[in-house]
Amino acid sequence: MGRILCAGLGPGDPDLMSVRSDRAIRAATHVAYFRKKGRPGQARRIVEGMLLPGAIEYPMEYPVTTELPFDSPEYIHCLATFYDDWADRLATLAQTEDVLVLCEGDPFFYGSFMHLYTRLQGRTTVEVIPGIPGMVGCWSATGVPITWGDDVMTVLMGTLPEDELVRHMQTADALVVMKTGRNLPRVRSALAKAGRLEQAWLVERGTMPGERVMKLADVDGTDCPYFAIVLVHGSGRRPEVQE
Amino acid sequence: MGRILCAGLGPGDPDLMSVRSDRAIRAATHVAYFRKKGRPGQARRIVEGMLLPGAIEYPMEYPVTTELPFDSPEYIHCLATFYDDWADRLATLAQTEDVLVLCEGDPFFYGSFMHLYTRLQGRTTVEVIPGIPGMVGCWSATGVPITWGDDVMTVLMGTLPEDELVRHMQTADALVVMKTGRNLPRVRSALAKAGRLEQAWLVERGTMPGERVMKLADVDGTDCPYFAIVLVHGSGRRPEVQE
Ligand SMILES: C[S@@+](CC[C@H](N)C(=O)[O-])C[C@H]1O[C@@H](n2cnc3c(N)ncnc32)[C@H](O)[C@@H]1O
Ligand SMILES: C[S@@+](CC[C@H](N)C(=O)[O-])C[C@H]1O[C@@H](n2cnc3c(N)ncnc32)[C@H](O)[C@@H]1O
Repeated sequence: MGRILCAGLGPGDPDLMSVRSDRAIRAATHVAYFRKKGRPGQARRIVEGMLLPGAIEYPMEYPVTTELPFDSPEYIHCLATFYDDWADRLATLAQTEDVLVLCEGDPFFYGSFMHLYTRLQGRTTVEVIPGIPGMVGCWSATGVPITWGDDVMTVLMGTLPEDELVRHMQTADALVVMKTGRNLPRVRSALAKAGRLEQAWLVERGTMPGERVMKLADVDGTDCPYFAIVLVHGSGRRPEVQE
Repeated sequence: MGRILCAGLGPGDPDLMSVRSDRAIRAATHVAYFRKKGRPGQARRIVEGMLLPGAIEYPMEYPVTTELPFDSPEYIHCLATFYDDWADRLATLAQTEDVLVLCEGDPFFYGSFMHLYTRLQGRTTVEVIPGIPGMVGCWSATGVPITWGDDVMTVLMGTLPEDELVRHMQTADALVVMKTGRNLPRVRSALAKAGRLEQAWLVERGTMPGERVMKLADVDGTDCPYFAIVLVHGSGRRPEVQE
């Protein structure tokens, strides 16, 4: 009787994964990870050079990317079937083997793994090793503390409607906007309406090869990779200490 | 010419610190950390057994704890002087030695280190190794993903006025309330007013010895340690996938 272990990989630099994930990855004989069809995949890239020579790999390739609208019933059904199938395959494999699933950042923080996790409940033992979320790697890359004192920090998805983005951007001190990618124009417009654009940073591929850290106001164009986060640092709500 | 390196320690379990922090701690010859007077200190406890035999330790003991009101001018002045003094001492030491400063969780996320960091700018080289924030260890301990889909997550300090807590608790999907400790009664009352109390969890000492994970509604009394976080999990704003 094996089990399923999901290892959080942290923001991208392999040195930033936890000691426990590092150890689990180096010992794993069955390794599964999500990726887009035809792409090496970020999770697999992070562990490059760490896997055992004989490790068996299970790339779980998303069935669709841009062909179907993201919120169409077809897309939703297709993705649900994909997760069902992989949950079945991993549960079967875990009857005899330990299986390691790789997950960028922290698995429980907007991670795709949770779609397998919910489906595996009660069928097999599933353990999760936490990881440094991508946003932590991104604010570290700016070299400025994200929050202090009584700051309120809100995490938003760039996929939200613009008016919702604006409302939250007005009420929080520190902001993290994930899934920026193709939503960058809406995120920028919402920040401008909330009066926060001048303080915003864009971090692309934080702690990964090709990392870029910029003030958002200085960014021309709308090209933005999938691994990108917009940040606004808090400035300390109640100055506990005079600086 | 040395430098100052601040190592994020993660939520408490030494296995959850990053490979880079682990390596830096095992190699350090000068190690500084904050602690309350007369206490061993959480940061020091996490690295127990990891330091070099000859490492020189610099416990930075907070000058006051409960004697002065937390927002009185005296307290603020006293703390500012304390940070000034330690920034001077570490900057002097870093002229000839590498100095490692330990910091629970992630140093840039409500970390005390930032009060040294701001004071050290331009005086010596300062590097920060990110860590898994305490909240990540806490939601992992609940065994339930904290966010998915388009969930909005807000991080609040239990020190905020109750009406501000209520307002944010009403508008976010997932909630993290830190600095719960002696503020637990106010946090509980705010959750009740926002209609979120039934969904709330209390995690004490997440991933540390003595970890406790409870539904907040089941908790009697108001005793709560400093290392405690209240969580409300998001439930997925837009069901990307049918579960
Ligand atoms: C599906 S979420 C997964 C989040 C992940 N579980 C975590 O803890 O960071 C994917 C989003 O995370 C953000 N992200 C994760 N790691 C990142 C990094 N190193 N640099 C920039 N963005 C990152 C991007 O906004 C991306 O669209
Ligand atoms: C000054 S903040 C420091 C936060 C730290 N830099 C981090 O990244 O988690 C201290 C607060 O963090 C929370 N905290 C940190 N680690 C925790 C843990 N392992 N369990 C429970 N609460 C924790 C508590 O709410 C505590 O009052």
